[in-house]
Amino acid sequence: MVDQLRVGIAGLGVVGSAAFRLLERQADALAARTGCRIEVTAGAVRDRGKERGLGHTSPKMFDDPVALARAPDIDLFVELMGGDEGAARASVEAALEAGKHVVTANKALLAKHGLALAKAAEQKRVALAFEASVAGGIPIVKTLREGLAGNSIERVYGILNGTCNYILSRMEREELSFEECLKEAQRLGYAEADPTFDIGGFDTAHKLAILTSLAFGTSIDADAIHVEGIEGVTLADIKAAEDLGFRIKLLGVAQRTRNGIEQRVHPTMVHKSSALAEVMGVTNAVTIDADAVHELTLVGPGAGGEATASAVVADIADIAKGIRSAPFGLPAARLQKTEKLAMQRHEGGYYIRFSAIDQPGTIAAIAKRMAERQISLESVMQKSDPRAAGKPGAPVPVVLITYATTEELVRGAVDAIVADGTVAEKPQVIRIERQ
Amino acid sequence: MVDQLRVGIAGLGVVGSAAFRLLERQADALAARTGCRIEVTAGAVRDRGKERGLGHTSPKMFDDPVALARAPDIDLFVELMGGDEGAARASVEAALEAGKHVVTANKALLAKHGLALAKAAEQKRVALAFEASVAGGIPIVKTLREGLAGNSIERVYGILNGTCNYILSRMEREELSFEECLKEAQRLGYAEADPTFDIGGFDTAHKLAILTSLAFGTSIDADAIHVEGIEGVTLADIKAAEDLGFRIKLLGVAQRTRNGIEQRVHPTMVHKSSALAEVMGVTNAVTIDADAVHELTLVGPGAGGEATASAVVADIADIAKGIRSAPFGLPAARLQKTEKLAMQRHEGGYYIRFSAIDQPGTIAAIAKRMAERQISLESVMQKSDPRAAGKPGAPVPVVLITYATTEELVRGAVDAIVADGTVAEKPQVIRIERQ
Repeated sequence: MVDQLRVGIAGLGVVGSAAFRLLERQADALAARTGCRIEVTAGAVRDRGKERGLGHTSPKMFDDPVALARAPDIDLFVELMGGDEGAARASVEAALEAGKHVVTANKALLAKHGLALAKAAEQKRVALAFEASVAGGIPIVKTLREGLAGNSIERVYGILNGTCNYILSRMEREELSFEECLKEAQRLGYAEADPTFDIGGFDTAHKLAILTSLAFGTSIDADAIHVEGIEGVTLADIKAAEDLGFRIKLLGVAQRTRNGIEQRVHPTMVHKSSALAEVMGVTNAVTIDADAVHELTLVGPGAGGEATASAVVADIADIAKGIRSAPFGLPAARLQKTEKLAMQRHEGGYYIRFSAIDQPGTIAAIAKRMAERQISLESVMQKSDPRAAGKPGAPVPVVLITYATTEELVRGAVDAIVADGTVAEKPQVIRIERQ
Repeated sequence: MVDQLRVGIAGLGVVGSAAFRLLERQADALAARTGCRIEVTAGAVRDRGKERGLGHTSPKMFDDPVALARAPDIDLFVELMGGDEGAARASVEAALEAGKHVVTANKALLAKHGLALAKAAEQKRVALAFEASVAGGIPIVKTLREGLAGNSIERVYGILNGTCNYILSRMEREELSFEECLKEAQRLGYAEADPTFDIGGFDTAHKLAILTSLAFGTSIDADAIHVEGIEGVTLADIKAAEDLGFRIKLLGVAQRTRNGIEQRVHPTMVHKSSALAEVMGVTNAVTIDADAVHELTLVGPGAGGEATASAVVADIADIAKGIRSAPFGLPAARLQKTEKLAMQRHEGGYYIRFSAIDQPGTIAAIAKRMAERQISLESVMQKSDPRAAGKPGAPVPVVLITYATTEELVRGAVDAIVADGTVAEKPQVIRIERQ
């Protein structure tokens, strides 16, 4: 154990400056807890002129994060710039190469280069820690890597993107369309001007890639994840879900199946009585199913400067204490390669909403296509929009909830129903996640 | 780091045998994760003849746990016998004295002797780990000790006793009395023949004592906790809570106040929309309010052989990896002494249920006593039992919800109301915990 740990922070934006202030504010407590003085001795920023509220004790500033990463002034390099290439990648690689510990919140970098970085850290016997990269202030990395060390994990799933959860919560609460809620989220700063990365499920996929590796001992691979966003979720779906006892959440799910580890991100029906259904707004939550602990759920802030800084500081404190874990729990050489599983083989229940043409025999025709494929129906709901009621020929919403079946059978049935000409628009299919 | 960690388990009951099997089942994974073979080389049991499902690889058996604790056959002693004195205390002390790491699930032992044991462990530079002592499989000790290292914690509170939560959940769901639910809990094995320890809040207090020490850096002291059980909670309270948007839970709460650290265990009104309100049955949950992470909630199994064994094995894995934390986060010498705070100084909202005598002016008289003490009322509900309606002179339930005030003022008002002779029986007072 060293008596002093000199920290350099690259990127002093919202998270970086919060981490800096937290390390200062808690300096004595951290010294008592870790047996080591943790000091931010240097930083790197793009614009030195900007006011960052760092007080009087401004550390030595570098323009070039790679120079900071290599500087003899620091023992530990904190990367909070973001981006999966460029300065972030170059500086993290430089820091590991120089034998310095690395703490990062950069999920995109880990999703793309995590395995190579873990190998580099192992080779130099330094830490590569990334609690802040998934679910902000929730200590999910530590829980998977250490807290559940004795468990064989069956499934890990959760709400990992606050923007999507905010939009879905608000659609439900205020009966607004997806587009209206997205605009509101952008106005409030919960969504980017280009929201594709969040809304399309890609941010969730990066985080899920990290959780999968930790939970299942696989080599991180975001390309093995099936990704769908929430753009297609309509208010009609949210209301039908409500009527049937469900809520719609964008989940990232990694699950052990007989075909391998299935990784997927998509809008999902969760039972209203489940812990995840209760998680509203920008909050994140992760549930783990494992053989010994059975079910464990962690709920907390998924973003925000202070909450994310809390995770960064916890990583730094562990390193100060001398805790060294393999970045993904197992030595990099033991991480197993994963395959992207075909979603056609996915097994589970389904929500299917049809806009059925209002004529005799429509429901019978739909039900027949399901029965042909041995798909059992848990519930069938036909509920006309009161505003359209009475208008002859207006399409009638028909919602089915199936028992567990396969995606291949469901897609086959839906295609056959469309071919039958009994539906007025493209049917909506949303997977159900059982708790 | 050692290549092999030899474990001795004293107490091979439900948790001990589950831990033994888990260590065997996960032996390869644990070796890969920790860089160390973990082997149960010895055990101690009261009755050697009993079948424990340990398979063919039965370890060397001792009759005397103290002899096991001192045996050169082991590096780490696991205490799963229970009890705050006797064999448990003697063997844990002997193990620490002999320079062996200790893992225990024994909350009663820690609540009583935790400080002395932490000092002994520090002196010998060995680990004293007790994840399994609080909230079963939930990694709350690790979260407080490591995961939130950068936070200043304001409050930690939770549902820490499955028996009480089972009874309260069942009273609500099935509209049964406390006595009926207790009997059912005993029949199902969720409550002991003598249920005082659970029902009276003492088990929760032992667990809270541990959480308080970890969260606030105080020396563990269960005697500083104000303890009330759930015996006095009636179905009338549960129904009134429901009507007012609350649920009743037995909570353990430790909170930083301007008077010091307030520690209390009592039936509590929690808002139905809160994470804790959703926790039903034997499940446990803990919420932490802290300056950086804001609010974090962990939900999981609070008991059960496998879930508790999961926590025991996580502790063993950390020790195998070489992780050494001060047992209560800070060196024992730095833990601050706490005082038992007078509950009269408690500040918060209150639920008060009166059986008011049905005569003109009763509510006015009750309201006057509140107003005299500047107690503001958030809601007032007078709701007659339909079965009693029409019977002249039958008492009328009047329920008040107050805004934040002090216990002294509330007790004073209630005493004055009783002295006024306007109520038919002892009023019920239940504290409200704001989320």
